[in-house]
Amino acid sequence: VSRTTVRRLPQKQVEQVQALHELLDAALVAHLAVLQDGQPFVVPTAFARDGDRLLLHGSTASRAFLALADGVPTCATVTIVDGVVVARSHFESSMHYRSAMVLGRCERLEGEPERLGLAALAARLLPGLDGARPPSGKELAATLVLSLPLAEWSLKVSDGPPDDVPADLDREVWAGVVPLQHRWGAPVPAPDLRAGIDVPVALGSWPAGRA
Amino acid sequence: VSRTTVRRLPQKQVEQVQALHELLDAALVAHLAVLQDGQPFVVPTAFARDGDRLLLHGSTASRAFLALADGVPTCATVTIVDGVVVARSHFESSMHYRSAMVLGRCERLEGEPERLGLAALAARLLPGLDGARPPSGKELAATLVLSLPLAEWSLKVSDGPPDDVPADLDREVWAGVVPLQHRWGAPVPAPDLRAGIDVPVALGSWPAGRA
Repeated sequence: VSRTTVRRLPQKQVEQVQALHELLDAALVAHLAVLQDGQPFVVPTAFARDGDRLLLHGSTASRAFLALADGVPTCATVTIVDGVVVARSHFESSMHYRSAMVLGRCERLEGEPERLGLAALAARLLPGLDGARPPSGKELAATLVLSLPLAEWSLKVSDGPPDDVPADLDREVWAGVVPLQHRWGAPVPAPDLRAGIDVPVALGSWPAGRA
Repeated sequence: VSRTTVRRLPQKQVEQVQALHELLDAALVAHLAVLQDGQPFVVPTAFARDGDRLLLHGSTASRAFLALADGVPTCATVTIVDGVVVARSHFESSMHYRSAMVLGRCERLEGEPERLGLAALAARLLPGLDGARPPSGKELAATLVLSLPLAEWSLKVSDGPPDDVPADLDREVWAGVVPLQHRWGAPVPAPDLRAGIDVPVALGSWPAGRA
C-alpha cells in the first residue's frame, strides 16, 4: 500500500497512464497544495502536461510559487466533473468525475529549459496560435516555470449508472445521470483588435470537452 | 494585510460576499487541503453552501475526512474557469476564472445537525428531486458531515479583454477571449429505471452554468 493507493472506493482506481494523460490533456487548471506557516493553501493554476511531467508557471512575486520552487512537498490535483448521478437514495447519489492526484516536489526550470517550458505551456494552452510574441527577457525574469514529475500519482474515475440497493429499485422516483458538458463558446474579439484580422482557424479545432 | 489579502494581482480581488455566494452556488466541487505526515493532499469533494458555511460530506472510512473532522487547519478552494484570454503576447495571455479560497477548520455535525446538513446537501446538489430516500441509520453512521465557516475567505475574479502592452497592439495576430461554457446535457435514465417514470421537470431548471 503506497501513498497513492486508493483506499476509498478502490474499484474506481485506474492504473493506465494513458487515462491519466487523457485527463491531464483535457483539463486547464490544477489545484496545488502549498504549506505556509502551518496553514495549507490550495492554489489553482494553469498547467500543461509535457510528456511525463506537469509544467506550471507563475509570478516570481507569488509566495506560493516561490515555496513550490524551493521544492516543498506538494500535491497537484486535477478534477473534471462529468455529471451528477441521481440515485433512488441520497446515499447512493454521487457524481461522474475524473480526478488525478500527483504527489512530489517541483523543480524550477531556468535558462533554456525555462524558455522551452514556457513554449510548451503556450502550445498546450493556446494551441495553433503561433503569432503571439514570446516572452521578453524582462518577462522571463518575472516568471517562475516549474516542473512536477508524473512519478507518484493516482487516478480515480467515476462513471456508469447509479448503483442502488435492491430494496430501492421499486421506488417511484427517477434515477439516472445528468451529464455536465464543457464546451467552447464563440470567440469574442478584443475591443482594440485591428480591422481585418479574422478569428484563427485553430480555435475551431481546440480540444472539445476541456474544463 | 491578513492571510486572505490578495497580494498577486490585487485588482482582481472582489470583496462582495454576494459574489462569493454566487460562485459557491454555481460550483459543484471544492478542493480541500489535508496535511498528513508532512505531505499535503488536495482532495476534491462535492459541497454545498448553506448560509455562511460550507457543508461537506464524506465517508467515515476516509483518512482525509477523519483528519478534517478533527479540526486540522484546511483550505477549501473553489474554481470555475470561464474562458481563455488570448493576448498578443504569451505573457499577457491568461484565463477568465472565478476562484474562492476559504481558510479555517471544519466542525463535525452530529445528531440532528448532521441530518439537517445532509438534507441541505441533497437540496443543493439534487435540487427539486424530492422523492429519493433519505439516509438510513446505517448510512448516517457511515457518513461524516462537516461544516466550514465562511469567515476567512478571499475571492479573485478575472474577466475582461486581454490587456496587451501598447507595443504589441500593432501585431498581425488575433486577440480576444474564448469562453468556456458549462452546460447540462440530456438526462440519461438508469438502465433499470421502472417503466412509466418520466424525467423530472426539476432537472430542466437546474442552475445553468454550474461546473
